[in-house]
Amino acid sequence: MHTYLLGIVLTLSALTATNALWPIPRSLESGNTSLKLSSGFKIAINIPRAPADLSDAAARTINHIKTDNLERLVVGRGAADSASIQHAKELPSLTLTLTPGSSARSISDEAIKTIGTRSEEYVLHVPSDGSPATITANSTLGLLRGLTTFEQLWYSSNNQIYTMEAPISITDAPAYPYRGLMLDTSRNFFAVSDIKRTLDAMSLAKMSQFHWHATDSQSFPLVIPGFTEVASKGAYSSSMSYSTKDIQDIVSYAGARGIDVVVEIDTPGHTAAITESHPEHVACSHVFPWSPVAGEPPAGQLRFASPTTTNFTAELLSAAAKLFPSKFFSTGGDEVNTNCYAGDAETQSILNSTGETLEQALSNFMQTTHGALEKLGKTPVVWEEMVLEHNVTLSNETVVMVWISSEHAAAVAQKNLRIVHGPSDFFYLDCGAGEWLGDNPLGNSWCDPFKTWQKSYTFDPLANISQEQAHLVLGGQQLLWTEQSDPSNLDPIVWPRAASSAEVFWTGSTLSDGSARNVNEALSRLHDFRFRLVQRGVRAIALQPLWCALRPGQCNGD
Amino acid sequence: MHTYLLGIVLTLSALTATNALWPIPRSLESGNTSLKLSSGFKIAINIPRAPADLSDAAARTINHIKTDNLERLVVGRGAADSASIQHAKELPSLTLTLTPGSSARSISDEAIKTIGTRSEEYVLHVPSDGSPATITANSTLGLLRGLTTFEQLWYSSNNQIYTMEAPISITDAPAYPYRGLMLDTSRNFFAVSDIKRTLDAMSLAKMSQFHWHATDSQSFPLVIPGFTEVASKGAYSSSMSYSTKDIQDIVSYAGARGIDVVVEIDTPGHTAAITESHPEHVACSHVFPWSPVAGEPPAGQLRFASPTTTNFTAELLSAAAKLFPSKFFSTGGDEVNTNCYAGDAETQSILNSTGETLEQALSNFMQTTHGALEKLGKTPVVWEEMVLEHNVTLSNETVVMVWISSEHAAAVAQKNLRIVHGPSDFFYLDCGAGEWLGDNPLGNSWCDPFKTWQKSYTFDPLANISQEQAHLVLGGQQLLWTEQSDPSNLDPIVWPRAASSAEVFWTGSTLSDGSARNVNEALSRLHDFRFRLVQRGVRAIALQPLWCALRPGQCNGD
Repeated sequence: MHTYLLGIVLTLSALTATNALWPIPRSLESGNTSLKLSSGFKIAINIPRAPADLSDAAARTINHIKTDNLERLVVGRGAADSASIQHAKELPSLTLTLTPGSSARSISDEAIKTIGTRSEEYVLHVPSDGSPATITANSTLGLLRGLTTFEQLWYSSNNQIYTMEAPISITDAPAYPYRGLMLDTSRNFFAVSDIKRTLDAMSLAKMSQFHWHATDSQSFPLVIPGFTEVASKGAYSSSMSYSTKDIQDIVSYAGARGIDVVVEIDTPGHTAAITESHPEHVACSHVFPWSPVAGEPPAGQLRFASPTTTNFTAELLSAAAKLFPSKFFSTGGDEVNTNCYAGDAETQSILNSTGETLEQALSNFMQTTHGALEKLGKTPVVWEEMVLEHNVTLSNETVVMVWISSEHAAAVAQKNLRIVHGPSDFFYLDCGAGEWLGDNPLGNSWCDPFKTWQKSYTFDPLANISQEQAHLVLGGQQLLWTEQSDPSNLDPIVWPRAASSAEVFWTGSTLSDGSARNVNEALSRLHDFRFRLVQRGVRAIALQPLWCALRPGQCNGD
Repeated sequence: MHTYLLGIVLTLSALTATNALWPIPRSLESGNTSLKLSSGFKIAINIPRAPADLSDAAARTINHIKTDNLERLVVGRGAADSASIQHAKELPSLTLTLTPGSSARSISDEAIKTIGTRSEEYVLHVPSDGSPATITANSTLGLLRGLTTFEQLWYSSNNQIYTMEAPISITDAPAYPYRGLMLDTSRNFFAVSDIKRTLDAMSLAKMSQFHWHATDSQSFPLVIPGFTEVASKGAYSSSMSYSTKDIQDIVSYAGARGIDVVVEIDTPGHTAAITESHPEHVACSHVFPWSPVAGEPPAGQLRFASPTTTNFTAELLSAAAKLFPSKFFSTGGDEVNTNCYAGDAETQSILNSTGETLEQALSNFMQTTHGALEKLGKTPVVWEEMVLEHNVTLSNETVVMVWISSEHAAAVAQKNLRIVHGPSDFFYLDCGAGEWLGDNPLGNSWCDPFKTWQKSYTFDPLANISQEQAHLVLGGQQLLWTEQSDPSNLDPIVWPRAASSAEVFWTGSTLSDGSARNVNEALSRLHDFRFRLVQRGVRAIALQPLWCALRPGQCNGD
């Protein structure tokens, strides 16, 4: 019976041999010739005046390949490859080339171009005969994506770095431009090093957007020039805030890795932390019990009916927007609790004097704050409530993040607004960890169950979206709200799960052989991606027992 | 309104001021005098020929106190304490004393004494007037428990180490002797350093038992003298196995920290890994599809009807038992799948020739293997099925681990057997992380939902157990099965949750003021315990936003 098993394993192993690429390229052909990396392997950048961040990316690629030291996920961990490797041809170099007429702008500049105008496509060839490999692209950003693929082609065994699948030909481009991850740095704080480690992992999955939910009611860690008092009083501590230098560090680190940083300063709800510096702008601040007026403690929302508060907010957001080169800026807009204002004497007095409804005041507030951002060339991003629950006038350019339910995307599309998918029923990384409020011993997570990578992987970006509306879908992202997370569990709660949506939005619905993307095909590649992350110091979780990771197909339910 | 809030916070803060002790002592009185640690603070061991592991424990205590650097979990993190600390008396020393007539055996020796005969009680006094603190106990193990409490009395602020609650008088002893944690090192491997870090955290929570589920069907990492081929072929790799030296290292590290190591070699099920070295002993080995014959892949169970296999197993377990000084040895016994034997020609042939039923053969197997262990002075430990589902004759001394449901404990008690609670509905740390089998994209964890610390904390060890049966309850433990865990997420999945049952079984059902143990009282102490773990390099998760951790009572549901 044991012999019988080995037969099964070998067969399945051969079927799933598409290297360890994640996301899987749109078009991929590979052979079965062994090829090893020359000890003097070099990357030649065949571009006059190549930008520094491209040279850095090439140097990182060489470093990754030499230090990943990832053994093949098969029984014996690649020991059986030794004989074949010993006589394999050596790959001497990789040449990076831009297509004629392409400009050699920096990766950072390409990564923050207006969404839809970025060029991420690339063509990668790895010949089997020992002649140089090549990556060709229309932009340095495309070359970076190609380098990221190239890094994932290699295994290690016996001090050799090799592939068993040369020659390799890849033509690749993303299905959707927005492939993101959201991190909440307000409920609990994350150091710059935690964010950088996350950006490294995101870049390995070819993700393009870091949605930085920077501030919320619990703390305001973003130091904004001209408004430094908001963080100095509203952050957990001075060591738990992001200085201008920290922000520049994060933005430039992200940009060099092909990632656009979309900051969010959530308004007018989720702003209790502004009370510490500007109590005059916050209604129902710290009201206790909190539940009638807030989604979670502490309560507190901006007095958006007040012209003074509206102007303060517009100036605060404008000052923050200048710190970030991205074309996007998120003003939040989720979970505005109207009860908060019903009991706020100042808001009621203003509404009485102007004769406006609360909804009219909210619309004015949004128009003023968004208008200020648009003057700075920013495209506003909002959560779905601003479109689906409130009667707010927004620019047609506004991007809407769907979070409450995947079923709400269709309603946003019907309003002809652009969509980023981040529905809690598929993409919330925090779900399933139990109740975090203090006195509910039998309570569970509000968005149970845990969203497995498999569940996220089944997401259909075009469900209930017509062909005519399809262009409105920019992509999507997984999200980490941090009521129960901080640096202690950042890596395990995010990785490798967040790579699931990275492939959904890069690869699209079909594999290069025409078959539908599916969890069975994906699992062994995701194991590889996970083990590579671990080799790089990202504490991604084990998806299965190692026994299963080494034996594709043996640990399916049956 | 903000002023109103501060009033609330201060009031609640005062109510919950019982230091940051976890588990909370059975009897505790504290004052409100500030006291700081002298820079020359020493621990004097007032015991002739004090054992080395007690001196080591005292040295560790001083090191912990000086390096924990834990700030008070209040708004301002203890900055407001500065004035009071400045003029506080200094604590020069702590004296450790054994009660007259007590023997000065090592902590390690005391920790592995027969359960029920260990002495863990201690009395701790910290005067407020600058005279020395004292811990008195009947054993070095009791002194260790007292040192662990002493470590938790101190906060840091402005380079001062202090308490605001002197004088402190504690008289303490555990409600139950078995306070454990189970770790599965077969499905995924954990390095000795991971286990040691876990033992350190366990010791801080005064836990007494490390239940080491060492082997299973996926891998057999335990190198057993005389049977080294089982691990050399059945471990994931030689670097993923525990040598005799590793085992001694773990046992002695645990012992010095007051922890008894109960090893488990699960039999006769969960033994597919033995196939690699001894295929002749394993039925339905690696049968695929696995689900008709096994709880999870890979399939494989010992041929317990075979006298050869029974003798092999008895010798293997005996050789393993000699590696561990504990009085306990677990032979497992869970999830024996009878279908496996229905299709096993060798088993059927043996049963035909002997005329025995499968159940009779199982009973013989258990008697032989347990008999061999009992000859070595070991008390066998089994999972509940051996008592509740099989017609197996077991010694009255056998300890039974309840896992399938908390409701099954009563049935074990009715059989007059001793109980360790580890029910999946309260104590399984792996629940709620989604389906790990490969092709079930919408599947969830089999034991959903996630078991929160609050849920575990509500566990009643005596539910449905009569007063006459109460003596059968040895205690209980939380358990980590590692289908989806390895060193990447060990700390966050275990801590601080596993401390929940540590307090349930140390403190019992009532607090020292006579009130019932409850999650509201416990939360702020558990925050402190968690932050202290983080300071010590254990990546325990955040239970709530820091905002909540600093403001007891403000983040309850309402």
